[in-house]
Amino acid sequence: MRATLMFGAGDVRVEEVPDASIAEPTDALVRVTRACICGSDLWPYKSLPSLDDGQPMGHEFIGVVEDVGADVAHLKRGDVVVAPFVVSDGTCDFCAEGLHTSCVNGGVWGVGGLDGAQGEAVRVPQADGTLVPLPVEVDDALMPSLLTLSDVFATGHHAAVSARVKEGDTVAVVGDGAVGLCGVIAARRLGAERILILGRHEERTSLAREFGATDVVSERGKEATARVRELTGGTGAHAVLECVGTEDALFTALKIARSGGAVGRVGVPQVESLPGAQETFMRNVTVSGGVAPARAYIPELLPEILEGRVEPGRVFDSEIDLDGVPDGYRAMNEREAIKVLIRP
Amino acid sequence: MRATLMFGAGDVRVEEVPDASIAEPTDALVRVTRACICGSDLWPYKSLPSLDDGQPMGHEFIGVVEDVGADVAHLKRGDVVVAPFVVSDGTCDFCAEGLHTSCVNGGVWGVGGLDGAQGEAVRVPQADGTLVPLPVEVDDALMPSLLTLSDVFATGHHAAVSARVKEGDTVAVVGDGAVGLCGVIAARRLGAERILILGRHEERTSLAREFGATDVVSERGKEATARVRELTGGTGAHAVLECVGTEDALFTALKIARSGGAVGRVGVPQVESLPGAQETFMRNVTVSGGVAPARAYIPELLPEILEGRVEPGRVFDSEIDLDGVPDGYRAMNEREAIKVLIRP
Repeated sequence: MRATLMFGAGDVRVEEVPDASIAEPTDALVRVTRACICGSDLWPYKSLPSLDDGQPMGHEFIGVVEDVGADVAHLKRGDVVVAPFVVSDGTCDFCAEGLHTSCVNGGVWGVGGLDGAQGEAVRVPQADGTLVPLPVEVDDALMPSLLTLSDVFATGHHAAVSARVKEGDTVAVVGDGAVGLCGVIAARRLGAERILILGRHEERTSLAREFGATDVVSERGKEATARVRELTGGTGAHAVLECVGTEDALFTALKIARSGGAVGRVGVPQVESLPGAQETFMRNVTVSGGVAPARAYIPELLPEILEGRVEPGRVFDSEIDLDGVPDGYRAMNEREAIKVLIRP
Repeated sequence: MRATLMFGAGDVRVEEVPDASIAEPTDALVRVTRACICGSDLWPYKSLPSLDDGQPMGHEFIGVVEDVGADVAHLKRGDVVVAPFVVSDGTCDFCAEGLHTSCVNGGVWGVGGLDGAQGEAVRVPQADGTLVPLPVEVDDALMPSLLTLSDVFATGHHAAVSARVKEGDTVAVVGDGAVGLCGVIAARRLGAERILILGRHEERTSLAREFGATDVVSERGKEATARVRELTGGTGAHAVLECVGTEDALFTALKIARSGGAVGRVGVPQVESLPGAQETFMRNVTVSGGVAPARAYIPELLPEILEGRVEPGRVFDSEIDLDGVPDGYRAMNEREAIKVLIRP
């Protein structure tokens, strides 16, 4: 089968790889019908050292079940399924607590022998725990939005939940990428009254406004902090969704949080230490969040999409086939595209 | 009047200073009947650069109201009162939210012209908002425990609340100082089933056991992490109370938190950055806490002391008068005493 491999920074290729197939009785084999490129794929795209063997890429997909192992009880051939970006068994203590990203039998697509999602098919371990059947046909018009349940909408939601967004809050979203935009949707859904988005890309902040953002802050660094304080009567935002992961973004997030407020961080951290240890202490700012347990949120978020109350799929502004994947990385990296949908 | 001044590291003196007196109509004048030395006073004791004018010391006290300004409505001469370690007006948005440490009219004892508490008397700004009348006589046997409402019990409670301690939790307390010991009391009160204290001072960990600790971890660093994991089935503690503030203590706290758990930090941070930005992200460990809003917690904690359900005053193992203050600092710094009570 064909799948996407990364051989180093900027070096993405679609190549022939061994066909995915059932290896364990708890596996399912899924033919990928929709996948996409993630903002987090751009970190290795900028920095991956040169590899002899390519790194399988992609961790978001929807597909059709082609085969199941003997122990798979809740899935059957032909099911249309969405896969969260992390494998989980659905039965361990962490899964029971809703933290599927810490599953004791977990795994990550493309890592440790698992297939990547930017390919024709995927072997899915712990299939009963990992996959969620979707009550739609394979080419349903809602596919782009449903695909965001894999990661980007669930991650924006996790940022909002971690930042403790509640009815009437003023919320700031740091970052106007696809996760930040989904964070706006999530914050609005949880009752935020005012939503400030920090970003400087016109087409993205416009979409943010359509999703519910009330103010756009295009400044950066100290100027961004000053502007947010000005817009919030000097106090900052009750909840801050940090959707970038750089030191600057983290520091800005901490600075614009209201005293007693919380930062929900979902941007993959590009630093070893969190800045502002004194600032957050003196002002009792909570820092929460991390890798989003998408699997835990799907039961809550799926009906929102099926019933048309949210349209996170609008973050996809480009659609390609497998041959287009290398150029899709380039386009996202150069910010020509917000998020690229792949139809293998 | 006489009061304690610090002139540099290790240089604590009790000297004559101008008498405290009413300056604003919202002030009260309080004759100090009990004060104490705080673990946080030891940071300047170790590191304060030499000063020509001494720094007034002390931020925890109980006393008797001697006079009130014209606008003070809820206090009168003769009232026995406890003062939280931060001044607050009780009426601003932050006070209304229970974050009195961020009061817009706040202040800190000994800073910006305010008197320190390790002296004969204190001018109390925002007296109606700051002081809490105590329904006891001036020499009640409960005085040591009541004095801990100023800071140390409220701070231990804040650590537990920030770490989201709930019924049935496994809790780890990093640090066996007075705050850590009060954290044990607070964690037990909030329903912790198992309480691990990380400390290596026999007399302190023994008191911790009397307060409700179930396990003592005397290892440090990596060995402490390994031991906590061993004691918790490999997963760590649901809630970690960080009561030290050094980089080592913070890092240990993050490492021993269960994935999805929380660290409530109340140790004054001795670092600019929080270690473990990746660790906390990958495992969704929340970092919360900060300067404890003691004033907010007094209504909940006061009855616990009055009705004898908790005895945080047992952290005082030494009692001195004003003349004894310099030696009290030395004794706490050399860990001869856990916490020193002052009767001016």
